[in-house]
Amino acid sequence: MSLIEDLNWRYATKKMNGTMIPQEKLDYILEAARMAPSSSGLQQYKIIVISDKGLLERIKRVAYNQSQVTECSHLLVFAAWDEYTDQRVSTVFNYTMDQRDLPYSTMDDYKTTILNLFSSRGKEWEAHHAAKQSYISFAMAIAAAAEQKIDATPIEGFDSDTLDELLKLTHSGYKSTVILPLGYRDAENDWLLDMKKVRTPRESFITEMTLEDIVDLEDLSRK
Amino acid sequence: MSLIEDLNWRYATKKMNGTMIPQEKLDYILEAARMAPSSSGLQQYKIIVISDKGLLERIKRVAYNQSQVTECSHLLVFAAWDEYTDQRVSTVFNYTMDQRDLPYSTMDDYKTTILNLFSSRGKEWEAHHAAKQSYISFAMAIAAAAEQKIDATPIEGFDSDTLDELLKLTHSGYKSTVILPLGYRDAENDWLLDMKKVRTPRESFITEMTLEDIVDLEDLSRK
Repeated sequence: MSLIEDLNWRYATKKMNGTMIPQEKLDYILEAARMAPSSSGLQQYKIIVISDKGLLERIKRVAYNQSQVTECSHLLVFAAWDEYTDQRVSTVFNYTMDQRDLPYSTMDDYKTTILNLFSSRGKEWEAHHAAKQSYISFAMAIAAAAEQKIDATPIEGFDSDTLDELLKLTHSGYKSTVILPLGYRDAENDWLLDMKKVRTPRESFITEMTLEDIVDLEDLSRK
Repeated sequence: MSLIEDLNWRYATKKMNGTMIPQEKLDYILEAARMAPSSSGLQQYKIIVISDKGLLERIKRVAYNQSQVTECSHLLVFAAWDEYTDQRVSTVFNYTMDQRDLPYSTMDDYKTTILNLFSSRGKEWEAHHAAKQSYISFAMAIAAAAEQKIDATPIEGFDSDTLDELLKLTHSGYKSTVILPLGYRDAENDWLLDMKKVRTPRESFITEMTLEDIVDLEDLSRK
């Protein structure tokens, strides 16, 4: 199956049946998430994997009691850096330079540039920026799950501060961003399954632009 | 090829050779981006497609002169809502209800809930939230390009305010979030191609947690 077929097969599963997914499929999904690109290659996020039913019950309470949180096989919690620091960035860049057999100083100028740029936007912006990178990884996990015919529910609807406390992320430098229950659809009891999948029509979603769209033709002829 | 193989094949192409990509591959990538999931199914973003060399030259100037912007075949500009409004959300939900043959009122309570939630976080948060959704679509475009063996460069490094002015997005309700040149690698002249792909090791990237990790065992036995 192609990615487009996978994306058409998947849907935000509203009810799962509790069946566990094979370890190799879980590993596949996590590996796709790990291989996702990120800004400056920083991978400023991580994934917490939870299948313990007791812990899932507690998470469900901070996720508006959405049933997939306990009906799933495994829950992925994506958590991103709460800010950029020299130490955090240096740790990643130094590891990359080690792997590429290059001196750490190779990245010095670039590191200074991005740290200055990021800090000029403020800490809240930094946390949003790191969270955005985690969404790319999150998307790769969603695509990988669909490729493996594993159902998944992208969920933003949870109290992230309370989840951070529960998972001891508070003061760890990470903040939860999104969660993804993985499992199998309960086909008979999922109201969303038979609903038509709706997306913005292509003609509204895609616009093509040329230079003529942005400048007066007269203005252009003068150049 | 599987998604993981595709993700290993791809890299943030630093130099492209100017060759155009076939229309059907472009369409495939755009369709994958269109089929991406988004928060509440709102698809609070769109894509502007640019292949006009004159316009690409102007965009390159606001993207720190990164050469891929003009060496690519097509540039995708992702742009997300700058805020949530009743009208914008209603337009999408009403379209969905039309497609599902359900009354518009079906979504009324849900719409009120999310609009209240979003507005309580402020406009800046709303813009970040909409931008995050565009990153999921951006990721699907990256995965689709790799599947089609089309090179792509995820780029955040551009002056978004100036790009918005250039593309007449300012005051349109959309803000540019990320750009993605699509094309073919210039294998002989791309310094990054032969560099080892580096990712955080699995053991640092993935953590497994159980209830025991968050509560004292003594505390647990009391329950």
